Amino acid sequence: MKSVYEHEIQFMTDFNKFFKPSTVVLLGASSDPRKWGWRILSNILFGGFQGNIYPINPNRDEILGKKVYKSVADVPEVPDLAIIVVPPTGIVTAVQDCVDKGIKAGVVITAGFAEIGAKGVALQKEMLEVARNGGMRLIGPNCFGILSPSQKLYAQMPPVYPPAGSIAVVSQSGNVGATIARRAMTLNFGISRLISTGNEADLHVEDFFQYLGTDSLTKVILSYVEGFKDGRAFIKIASQVSRNKPIIMIKVGETEAGASAARSHTAALSGSDRVFEGACRQAGIIRVHNMRELMNIGYGFLCNPAPRGRRVGIATLGGGWGVLAADACSKLGLDVVKLNEEVLKELDSFLPGWWSRNNPVDLVAGSGMADEMLRVIEVLAKYDQTDGVICLGLPFPSPERPPSPLTDEEGQNRGRLIIDHYKNVFMKIRGLSEKYSKPVIVSAELFVPRHYVQEQDIMSEIAGVGGVCYSSPDEAAVVMHALATYGEFLRR
Amino acid sequence: MKSVYEHEIQFMTDFNKFFKPSTVVLLGASSDPRKWGWRILSNILFGGFQGNIYPINPNRDEILGKKVYKSVADVPEVPDLAIIVVPPTGIVTAVQDCVDKGIKAGVVITAGFAEIGAKGVALQKEMLEVARNGGMRLIGPNCFGILSPSQKLYAQMPPVYPPAGSIAVVSQSGNVGATIARRAMTLNFGISRLISTGNEADLHVEDFFQYLGTDSLTKVILSYVEGFKDGRAFIKIASQVSRNKPIIMIKVGETEAGASAARSHTAALSGSDRVFEGACRQAGIIRVHNMRELMNIGYGFLCNPAPRGRRVGIATLGGGWGVLAADACSKLGLDVVKLNEEVLKELDSFLPGWWSRNNPVDLVAGSGMADEMLRVIEVLAKYDQTDGVICLGLPFPSPERPPSPLTDEEGQNRGRLIIDHYKNVFMKIRGLSEKYSKPVIVSAELFVPRHYVQEQDIMSEIAGVGGVCYSSPDEAAVVMHALATYGEFLRR
Repeated sequence: MKSVYEHEIQFMTDFNKFFKPSTVVLLGASSDPRKWGWRILSNILFGGFQGNIYPINPNRDEILGKKVYKSVADVPEVPDLAIIVVPPTGIVTAVQDCVDKGIKAGVVITAGFAEIGAKGVALQKEMLEVARNGGMRLIGPNCFGILSPSQKLYAQMPPVYPPAGSIAVVSQSGNVGATIARRAMTLNFGISRLISTGNEADLHVEDFFQYLGTDSLTKVILSYVEGFKDGRAFIKIASQVSRNKPIIMIKVGETEAGASAARSHTAALSGSDRVFEGACRQAGIIRVHNMRELMNIGYGFLCNPAPRGRRVGIATLGGGWGVLAADACSKLGLDVVKLNEEVLKELDSFLPGWWSRNNPVDLVAGSGMADEMLRVIEVLAKYDQTDGVICLGLPFPSPERPPSPLTDEEGQNRGRLIIDHYKNVFMKIRGLSEKYSKPVIVSAELFVPRHYVQEQDIMSEIAGVGGVCYSSPDEAAVVMHALATYGEFLRR
Repeated sequence: MKSVYEHEIQFMTDFNKFFKPSTVVLLGASSDPRKWGWRILSNILFGGFQGNIYPINPNRDEILGKKVYKSVADVPEVPDLAIIVVPPTGIVTAVQDCVDKGIKAGVVITAGFAEIGAKGVALQKEMLEVARNGGMRLIGPNCFGILSPSQKLYAQMPPVYPPAGSIAVVSQSGNVGATIARRAMTLNFGISRLISTGNEADLHVEDFFQYLGTDSLTKVILSYVEGFKDGRAFIKIASQVSRNKPIIMIKVGETEAGASAARSHTAALSGSDRVFEGACRQAGIIRVHNMRELMNIGYGFLCNPAPRGRRVGIATLGGGWGVLAADACSKLGLDVVKLNEEVLKELDSFLPGWWSRNNPVDLVAGSGMADEMLRVIEVLAKYDQTDGVICLGLPFPSPERPPSPLTDEEGQNRGRLIIDHYKNVFMKIRGLSEKYSKPVIVSAELFVPRHYVQEQDIMSEIAGVGGVCYSSPDEAAVVMHALATYGEFLRR
C-alpha cells in the first residue's frame, strides 16, 4: 500500500478528474426517489452537468430518462470520476470494478465505515487498499459528495446549486458544507469547489487545500474540521497555501462533549485544542468558532485587501453603533487610534461644528448624507493614521417615504432606485478601498420597504460590485481583526 | 430641587402620561421637511396617533394639515405630553412654558447638553431645575424620543413603526434603540414601549425598568447602556424587576476606546466593567455583548419557559451541526448529558439501527422526517434527564423540487404550503415545550425557494405561533444558556 505522498506526480491530474471530469459514472443508481442513488443522479442531471453520465444498476434499463448500464465494465468509455452510493457490503467490489475499468477518481458517499466502530474500520481499510493498489484516489466514505459549479457538476446529496464563484469549501461535515453553500448563495457569493471529505480514508483536508492553492477559481477557503488524520502534513501544507489564499476554519471538538460527538460523526480524533490553536497561528489559519464568523470573514477577504497594521478609523451615523464598534475593536486588540490634528482639521472643514472630534467619527444625526459619509471614509483612509476603516450606517435613499401609495410600476421603479442607491454607494466605497489599499468594512441596516424591494436583492447587487454589508458593528470589528491578523501573518 | 425618588407617589401617573397620553404638544414644529421638527410631527401623524396633536410654532398657521399654535399657552387644553425639539438656546423657556401650562411629562429630543462639555452641563442643569420645580418629568435630552405602539404613539426621530408587542426597549442610544425595533419587526415581534433615554437629566434607565415592571404589555426588557447616573438605584430596581421580567442588556464602555466614545456620545461615565459584571449577576440581568445576542435571547424568553437546570438534550439532522452545538453548549457550561438506557431504548425503538446512540441524537441523513424529529424532541423532553432541548435542522416540506415550473397560482399555493409546513412544525414544537415545561430551542435553515416564498414571511408566521428559528447551532446554545442562567437566578 503506497503512502498518500507517493502520488505527488499525479496530483493535478487526479484532482482535475474530480473537479473537471468529462464523464461521470454513478454506482448504485436507483429508480426509487426516496433513495440517495436516485436523488444524487437527479441532482447531477438537474444541475446541468454537460459531460456524459452513466448510471449503473444491474436491474434497470433507464432512470430519469438516462440509459442505465448493468456494470461499470459495460460503460463504453473510461469515466473520469465515479460517484459511489452502493451499500457498505458492496463497496469493495464497486471500487474494484472502478479500478478494473481504469477509473482514477472516486467519491464514496456511502456511510457505515470507521464512524461505526471496528467492523467499519476494517471495511474502510479494505476498500482503501483496493483503491491504492489500483492507483485510484478516493473522497469519503461517509460524505455528501462534491460540487464544482464552473463545470455544472453538482454531485451531492442535498439539492444545492450555488453559482460558480471564488469561495472553496472543505468540510468534514456534509451538512455544514451545504450550509456554507446555501448561506453564500443567499448573498450571491458563488462557490469554486465544495468538498465533503467525510471519513477521509484516502484524501484528507490538506490534500484539498493543496489543490485549491493551485486552483485559479479559488480566492478564499472556508473549512470545517473535526480532527486531523495527519496533523504534520496538514500544518505543512496549510502554511504554504495560506500565503496565497486565506484559510478560515472552524475546528470543533474543543470540549469533551464536542469531541465525543465528532467521534461518532466522522470517527475524528479531535486532539488537543491548545496544540491546534498554536498550529493555526503558525500556519496563518484564521480560526473561528461559529458559522457566522466563518461566512463574514470569508466575504471580508473577497472584498478587501489585508491591512498593513491594526489601526482602525471608525465613521458612524449613530453614536451607539460607534461605541459598540470601539469596544469590539479594542477587545480584539485593534487600535482605535486617536486622530491627529491634521485629520481633525480636515474633518472640521465639512462636519457640523458640534461633531465629537473623536474616533469614532460620529457624523451627528441629521447630517448624514451619503456624500458626507464617503468624505469621512476617504479622510480616514488617506492619512497614514489608520490601516483600515469601519463604516457604520449608510444613509437611506431619499425620499424615505413616498408621498402616497405607489402603483405596481411606481413600486418597481422605487425598488430599482433603492437597489441602485446602495449599489452606487458600495461601488464608491470599493473605489476608496482600492485607491488607498485599505480595507473598508461596512455595517449598516439597509432601507427595505418590503413592498418594493427585498433585502436579499439589495445584498445580491452589492455582492455584484464586490461589496458586503454586515449587520452589526461587532461583526465589522471581527472581520477587520481577521484581516489584520492575516496581514501580520503575510508580513512574517 | 427635589430628588428623583421623592416623586414616588406620582410614579404611575407620570409614566402613563408618557406612554398613554391623550394629547401631545410638539414644541419646535417646523414646516421644513429637512428639520426634525417636521420629521417628528410627520412620524407622529403617519403613525396614526389617535389623540389630539398640537404643533407649536409662532410663525406658521398650518403644518402637514394640522393647525399650528403660536405658543403652548394658546393650546385649548392641558396636554399630557410635550415633545420638545426647540434649539438648545430655547430649551429653558420651552420647559418653563410647559410647566406654566401644567404639563407633567416631557421628552427633550434636542442635543447639545452634557455631551458637549461644561456649558452644556450647566444648561442641562438649568432645564432640569425648571422641570423639577414645576413637577414635570423629563426624558432626554439628546434622545430619539419614545414609542408606544399600543397607543399608536410614534414620537421618534427615525420613521420606524413596529407593531404593538411584548418587547420593551430602554436604550441610551437612539440609534441602537431603533435598530432593535427594526430587527424585531422583521421577525414580526412587536414592541410594548421604546424609550431612547439620552443624557438622562431627570429619568434614568432604572426608572423605566420600574415602570415596565408594572406594565402588563411588557414581557421582556432589552436595554443598551453606556453608563449609570445612579448605580445603586439601578441595581436595587433591576433586582426587583428582573424577578418578573427578564432584562437583557448590552453595557458598553468595556474598553477605554469604548468608554471614550460613550463620553462624547451621551456624557456617560462607564465605570468599572468588573463591578458591573458582578452587579449584573446579583441583579439577575442577562448581560450580552452584541446586538445579535440581545435580540436572540429576547426572542428566546418570549417563546420559552426558563429551564430548571443546565442539562441539555440535542436532536440533530446533521452530524456537524450536532458537534457545533455540543461544543458551544459545553463551553458555556451547559451539560450535554449522557443519555441513560431508558432514553436510548425509546430512541432505539424508532431510529434506524445505525444511529449514534449518543447525545447529540443524530437522526442520520435521510431518515429525518418531520414526525421523527418531533418524536426525538419529545423523548428528550419528557424524561428527567434533561432540562431543555436543542433541535438542529427541520425537514424540508415535500416535494423539495416541484416536477416542473409552476404557474403563478401554483407558485402561490406552493408558497402557502411551505409557510404552513413550518408553522405547523413550530406549533407542535411549542406544544411539546409547554407540555413538558422545558425550553425547546430550534436552529434550522428554512427551505426558501425565493420565487414562491420569502424567508421573512415564514419567520413572521412562525413568530405568530410563538416560535423563533435561529440560524446557527451556537446561537441556540447561547439562548439556552441565557435561559438557564435566568432560571438559576429565579431559584436563588
